[in-house]
Amino acid sequence: MMGTVAKPTIGIIGTGAIGGFYGVMLARAGFDVHFLLRSEFSAVAEHGLRVDSAPHGVLTLNPVQAYSDAQDMPPCDWLLVGAKTTSNADLAPAILQAAAPSAKVLLLQNGLDVEDSLRALLPDSLHVLGGLCYICVHREAPGVITHQALGAVHVGYHSGPADGPARSAIVEEGVGLFRSAGLDSQAMANLHQARWQKLVWNIPYNGLSVLLGASTTPLMADADSRELVKALMAEVVQGAVACGHDVPAGYAEHLFMVTEKMPDYWPSMYHDYLHKRPLELAAIYARPLAAAKAAGCEMPRIEALYRSLSFIDRRNT
Amino acid sequence: MMGTVAKPTIGIIGTGAIGGFYGVMLARAGFDVHFLLRSEFSAVAEHGLRVDSAPHGVLTLNPVQAYSDAQDMPPCDWLLVGAKTTSNADLAPAILQAAAPSAKVLLLQNGLDVEDSLRALLPDSLHVLGGLCYICVHREAPGVITHQALGAVHVGYHSGPADGPARSAIVEEGVGLFRSAGLDSQAMANLHQARWQKLVWNIPYNGLSVLLGASTTPLMADADSRELVKALMAEVVQGAVACGHDVPAGYAEHLFMVTEKMPDYWPSMYHDYLHKRPLELAAIYARPLAAAKAAGCEMPRIEALYRSLSFIDRRNT
Repeated sequence: MMGTVAKPTIGIIGTGAIGGFYGVMLARAGFDVHFLLRSEFSAVAEHGLRVDSAPHGVLTLNPVQAYSDAQDMPPCDWLLVGAKTTSNADLAPAILQAAAPSAKVLLLQNGLDVEDSLRALLPDSLHVLGGLCYICVHREAPGVITHQALGAVHVGYHSGPADGPARSAIVEEGVGLFRSAGLDSQAMANLHQARWQKLVWNIPYNGLSVLLGASTTPLMADADSRELVKALMAEVVQGAVACGHDVPAGYAEHLFMVTEKMPDYWPSMYHDYLHKRPLELAAIYARPLAAAKAAGCEMPRIEALYRSLSFIDRRNT
Repeated sequence: MMGTVAKPTIGIIGTGAIGGFYGVMLARAGFDVHFLLRSEFSAVAEHGLRVDSAPHGVLTLNPVQAYSDAQDMPPCDWLLVGAKTTSNADLAPAILQAAAPSAKVLLLQNGLDVEDSLRALLPDSLHVLGGLCYICVHREAPGVITHQALGAVHVGYHSGPADGPARSAIVEEGVGLFRSAGLDSQAMANLHQARWQKLVWNIPYNGLSVLLGASTTPLMADADSRELVKALMAEVVQGAVACGHDVPAGYAEHLFMVTEKMPDYWPSMYHDYLHKRPLELAAIYARPLAAAKAAGCEMPRIEALYRSLSFIDRRNT
């Protein structure tokens, strides 16, 4: 599908676990990938990037086209944003500097409406897309990423100059990037609905990892935390339905079973907590709670979890 | 009121913070008080008991009539049980050994229906009463108790051979004991309802102290934990009402304001957690949840808190 056109230039905005993993996979697949880094620039410029991947083995990229300033980056056709949602509004200047005309900005992030604050700061000529990553990955050390399992990216169009068939073509182009790198990828017809569905996993496991100091295996081994996970999942599904989204029958049960079969996993929020970074509470909790409430749906367990996490976050950072 | 009758002999079953404080206060008021101890027997037999009381100053009792075995205790007219609810069923043999005929067994404990398991193991000739302690107190070291504030005990009749006026007389006798020691005390007409009301405080603050690792002052200083406390209190009130109990209008708001004015306080459940003792989850959470559910009332935030605490408790002990 990509054969007759020049391969796009790709920029990675925020080279953490997600940005680093997908950037390395795309670079190794032959794409021209440029990495924007902040605190880890020197380490990566000197030693490159390394992904210790359970399914793929040790994958290295050295030298890395690494940048500490977006104005030094070439114009990128695709910008993959792997930064935390808590900094989205601050990313606009870097994105504008690194974006080719009509660039596609793909946010590889969890949470609801994470594109909105950034969208408002970008010109109408840029396309904004959302990507949902189904992957167990974390940053082990500067420039070193541990990839435990999975890897799929689902891509949907958020907003921009394209409509109708042009949107679909852009989404398919994004899907094609990941597939070219050997990764599963699918187009999402409804990004907002897909974000709600992803929350069925993120809301219980991210929050409980911090609240209970527990990774997925102990959470799935205890009768009470299992019931709590199920109850939280059920509230997310109720919220999604109240907001007008169909959730496939048995979807929560499916995610529950998938998690039982996953390797033991610490969700990203736990790593944020451990490193005293702000937790992604607005994207993963506050916005879904507000959206559900506006649709007349209370999610009391999620609200209690959110308030508990807010208290913890404020003491931690 | 007590002038013309012999002062009753009092036994303290479980000389922790609560048993120790009230035992010392009663002994200093001239009552014949006998203390049953386990791990701290030697320390107390040797050094006595000391209460460092913010309102009353340093109160010492030395020598202490201390026992490591209930069969050595004299027959007691009143037995004040200060042990944890988690051990109630195990206390029956000691209580039987220390009880005078027609003794009154007063459980100074929080939670719902804490008398039931013990009641079933005691002969019908014994009176069982419940006492609710409004006090900020904790065990500082073996035989050393810190008393920060308050001290009232409310007394109600649970079950036994007395009925009608005889019940009231026994409750008034209990109230009189505490008043003789300079403490506020009141009779409760409906013990079960009073236990529900006390839960309006215990359910939020005990659980959140463990879940969030926070004492009352930080919990009352943060906007999110304040809202969480209020929401949990509201659920307890709903549960109580569903179970047929009136809760005075503004009762939760009153407790909220009282807590704002209290000295910074770590609830007893936090101390239990810290010392890896089993948490009183059945008395304070599971039974109220089951009672409310049987009355058709869900308490989702309390249920989430209970399941979280159950997970924590299982990993802690």
